[in-house]
Amino acid sequence: MSNTLSASLRGSLFYGKEKFKMNKYTKTELVANWQSLMRTFIKPEDDASRLVLIKYMEQISFGLHEFLGKHVGITEDVGLKDLSSRFKNTLISKNPEKKLTDVITEIVEDIAPHAVNVASPYFIGHMTSAIPFFMVHLKTIVAALNQNVVKIETSKVVSILEKQILAKIHRLVYKKSSDFYERYVQNIRTTLGCFVEDGTLANITALWVARNRLFAPKNGFTGVEQEGIQAACSAYNINRCVVIVSRLGHYSIKKAGGLLGIGNQNVIAVDIDADNRMDLDCLKKTIREIKHDGAGIVAVVGIAGTTETGAIDPLPQIGALCSENKIYFHVDAALGGPTLMSEKYSHFLEGIDIADSVTIDGHKQFYMPMSCGMVFFKDPSIMDAVKYHANYVNRFGSVDLGIKSLAGSREANSLILDSALKIMGSQGYALLIEHGIETTRMFAEEIERRDNFQLITRSDLNILTYRICPFDIKRRLAEGNPEQICIINKELNKINRVVQRLQREAGKSFVSRTKLRTGSKPEKEIVVFRCVIMNPMTDIKILNEILDEQEEIYKSNFDELVKSRFCSLHDHFGRN
Amino acid sequence: MSNTLSASLRGSLFYGKEKFKMNKYTKTELVANWQSLMRTFIKPEDDASRLVLIKYMEQISFGLHEFLGKHVGITEDVGLKDLSSRFKNTLISKNPEKKLTDVITEIVEDIAPHAVNVASPYFIGHMTSAIPFFMVHLKTIVAALNQNVVKIETSKVVSILEKQILAKIHRLVYKKSSDFYERYVQNIRTTLGCFVEDGTLANITALWVARNRLFAPKNGFTGVEQEGIQAACSAYNINRCVVIVSRLGHYSIKKAGGLLGIGNQNVIAVDIDADNRMDLDCLKKTIREIKHDGAGIVAVVGIAGTTETGAIDPLPQIGALCSENKIYFHVDAALGGPTLMSEKYSHFLEGIDIADSVTIDGHKQFYMPMSCGMVFFKDPSIMDAVKYHANYVNRFGSVDLGIKSLAGSREANSLILDSALKIMGSQGYALLIEHGIETTRMFAEEIERRDNFQLITRSDLNILTYRICPFDIKRRLAEGNPEQICIINKELNKINRVVQRLQREAGKSFVSRTKLRTGSKPEKEIVVFRCVIMNPMTDIKILNEILDEQEEIYKSNFDELVKSRFCSLHDHFGRN
Repeated sequence: MSNTLSASLRGSLFYGKEKFKMNKYTKTELVANWQSLMRTFIKPEDDASRLVLIKYMEQISFGLHEFLGKHVGITEDVGLKDLSSRFKNTLISKNPEKKLTDVITEIVEDIAPHAVNVASPYFIGHMTSAIPFFMVHLKTIVAALNQNVVKIETSKVVSILEKQILAKIHRLVYKKSSDFYERYVQNIRTTLGCFVEDGTLANITALWVARNRLFAPKNGFTGVEQEGIQAACSAYNINRCVVIVSRLGHYSIKKAGGLLGIGNQNVIAVDIDADNRMDLDCLKKTIREIKHDGAGIVAVVGIAGTTETGAIDPLPQIGALCSENKIYFHVDAALGGPTLMSEKYSHFLEGIDIADSVTIDGHKQFYMPMSCGMVFFKDPSIMDAVKYHANYVNRFGSVDLGIKSLAGSREANSLILDSALKIMGSQGYALLIEHGIETTRMFAEEIERRDNFQLITRSDLNILTYRICPFDIKRRLAEGNPEQICIINKELNKINRVVQRLQREAGKSFVSRTKLRTGSKPEKEIVVFRCVIMNPMTDIKILNEILDEQEEIYKSNFDELVKSRFCSLHDHFGRN
Repeated sequence: MSNTLSASLRGSLFYGKEKFKMNKYTKTELVANWQSLMRTFIKPEDDASRLVLIKYMEQISFGLHEFLGKHVGITEDVGLKDLSSRFKNTLISKNPEKKLTDVITEIVEDIAPHAVNVASPYFIGHMTSAIPFFMVHLKTIVAALNQNVVKIETSKVVSILEKQILAKIHRLVYKKSSDFYERYVQNIRTTLGCFVEDGTLANITALWVARNRLFAPKNGFTGVEQEGIQAACSAYNINRCVVIVSRLGHYSIKKAGGLLGIGNQNVIAVDIDADNRMDLDCLKKTIREIKHDGAGIVAVVGIAGTTETGAIDPLPQIGALCSENKIYFHVDAALGGPTLMSEKYSHFLEGIDIADSVTIDGHKQFYMPMSCGMVFFKDPSIMDAVKYHANYVNRFGSVDLGIKSLAGSREANSLILDSALKIMGSQGYALLIEHGIETTRMFAEEIERRDNFQLITRSDLNILTYRICPFDIKRRLAEGNPEQICIINKELNKINRVVQRLQREAGKSFVSRTKLRTGSKPEKEIVVFRCVIMNPMTDIKILNEILDEQEEIYKSNFDELVKSRFCSLHDHFGRN
């Protein structure tokens, strides 16, 4: 080891007084230096080291806290282009560039201020929100333990704990008998579900299982997992298979179609009703047509909380249709699943227990850190269709969770969920979820009360969409013919796009935007603001401030323009 | 909110003095209590709260440390069955069960002692090992920032930083020109790679891209991603497609075959040479046969560090063959990739830059916490074959990293890798990797020096396998005919299985075991001990202790038995 490097390592890797001691070492003590490098792999042991360590932790917690208190952070103070130009160093330095403490300081002072403050109550644009502070502690524990739940040999009790928490959430969803859970909670041959990175991978896992169920082994055909889709279609004498979901389905369903070899154009988008729920007549018609075509149906996917509008599909009816037609029924409850913990609102998810599988995302309404997607299966043996063994891992008959899992190595985020449920209780979560739902309702009322806004979608859950639409224009929309409506919407789209951007750039608050097709009307897509109310600190006062800000941006940029445009539109109407 | 619940929440969710203040609140103050629930979502602000927070952090760091100092933890003091019986509670409690502090204490005192101490230098069984202590700090920062890199709106600078670190590792692998990196490092239309959960998902992503490249759009066919494998095979007029890998390939390659609709039996295992590297003649023959059959070849996978033996396939030759035959070439360097940082040993990976894609796993030789798989692509546009857009996320022309990514929501673990490289420098990592390689060499020599052991495989990297095989038996194996050898190996397999288990159960050290077929010899599978030397504190002294322990277990359990069995084997030889 060179002198320069060892000096740098001394400066960068050691804690506390040791660092200073090391500087006195001469060349003959370079071996001791290697010994010290090794010591960075264990926790510091003396009091001085403890103090330094605690200083770092304080810096992380409170340094970040001060940043988080300040702004929402999507501000364009420093634009993306500008930021990008600062991150173009593509060479890894041979020698250490910075001491640990400087790296942490850099993150706190230079990186964090340009990150997004998703914890702000003014950040209501996405499902990434504030998380309770103890979640960070729990994540720290998971990192420090560094267990790998792919196999029992690198996790032991943590794998067993994961099976228990899978059973707890399975029970929340499926409400099977105590006997059922007694039989399956620690059964090493079965699994009640699987932890994955996120909702996308949960949906993919569910549809992977569904595909393999459709193309199960029969008459010398050993199954699609072994022989592939080409052989499966031959064995079953069909020319294609499809997945059916409402056209508000998450894009991961299409991705699953592509990934699994089904083809993403074979993910059939069924139309929706006026409440953004899957239209049952359309579903029936689609099933009939697909069957008539001789194609296979991998699954029908119901949504419990669509990403854009929060709508919940009619699960009992879809479930009944699936049972009738022997079709696999998956429910994407990535957002809505935890609503089951609210005694007040769990009825919104009625019928979810009919589903063959259910996706729930931990970082959404379980308020967990990232990387805790989950998928649950009604049948504890159905994941046998995707099991993999190897000599060195995932041995037959072992507890190894990696036997039935999309990923291999995985961190033990199940430990966080288990702990959080103990700390919060289901009712602690219920309070949060109910706050989201009820605040969203109040927000909808407020939007309807204001002349310059138009509520576009509301749902049972904590998502709504709306747009700026001045009173006069609303009247015009109500009276106009399809062509006129189309022209007005185009103008409004431009306005709403700009208002959303200006508000984001101002950096005080953040509302996302999306494009929606409203019902079956012919106006095509309209641009809307989209809000997800998850943060318990987001209250109606803050929401009013956000509306005020939007109204002000609108007025100072468009009011005059709209009035003159309105005249031209008026002319336009006149001509038609 | 009920009184009971609010009382519980007071007890469980609040930090510091506030907790005690809260108890004095009466019913009319329940609103204030709700306010306090909200406050758990931000960092504590007063000094008392700070102290409590720091106390928790100390408990986590030093409580776990004390456990980690004690034992390896796969001990069967408490057997798995016994442990399982303690985790059968499948009901979520309505009210909080425990205070935060009690949950942390429970983890430190009741969970951790039954977890596996992967950080012990006596734990040499798997690629999950000790990580430098600062990694835990960095993970804490990632959790506290709670960015979601699926889109710029929930990550901003962190997405830009991720692009930079992707370029850094890409440059380590592919060594393209400065101009190349200047052009692509922050290019929003291209990507140099992708972060995923682990090596399995990295391999899956690579083969997903490879499949889509094989079945690219042509003559009215819009590509396999859109139309599916059935249509793709028709368009290309082939009846199946295959992936080729050595028979030591990681099981994720088979899993990818199954998942992607190729069929896992179409993952063709090519034989290996005496050094456990892919046999080039076999590869040529396989390619010829597949082509003759009219099947498509999705990819040839080379391995840079097989999971079981650490062998590195002949990458330059495989690469040349692939170029010649226009076949996609993927390298699974999940383990070996970081060896590129060692000037001393990077030549082992010669030819890796020919690969179309390369898998590297952060939690292996980058010594990171779990959940940092990576895949890199030579062609910055090739991931266009797997891109997905949606109205509310991953917009066209945005920096949104989720456009080309298997997962959706993802945590910003790239920030950890970026920081770690700054703290360590490539040479800091080189020291660790060189220690692993060189200690493994010394270990191999020691095994060969001992009469009762037999070295089975060695490699250029930090993995070897060996078994207990007493001197007399070695002689017998050398002289025996295939049938005799087979009988002896069966006996040895039993012995080695038991010794591995007894050592694991004793709880002092952990060596894994696997089954290997040695070269092309007919003895079929033999049971071996498998060692991965990653922990810098694992030195030859410790490895000698591990061998001593195995020898002692062997002697006290089998020595007599083997001597008598040897006689019976002798008889057996006599009869043949």
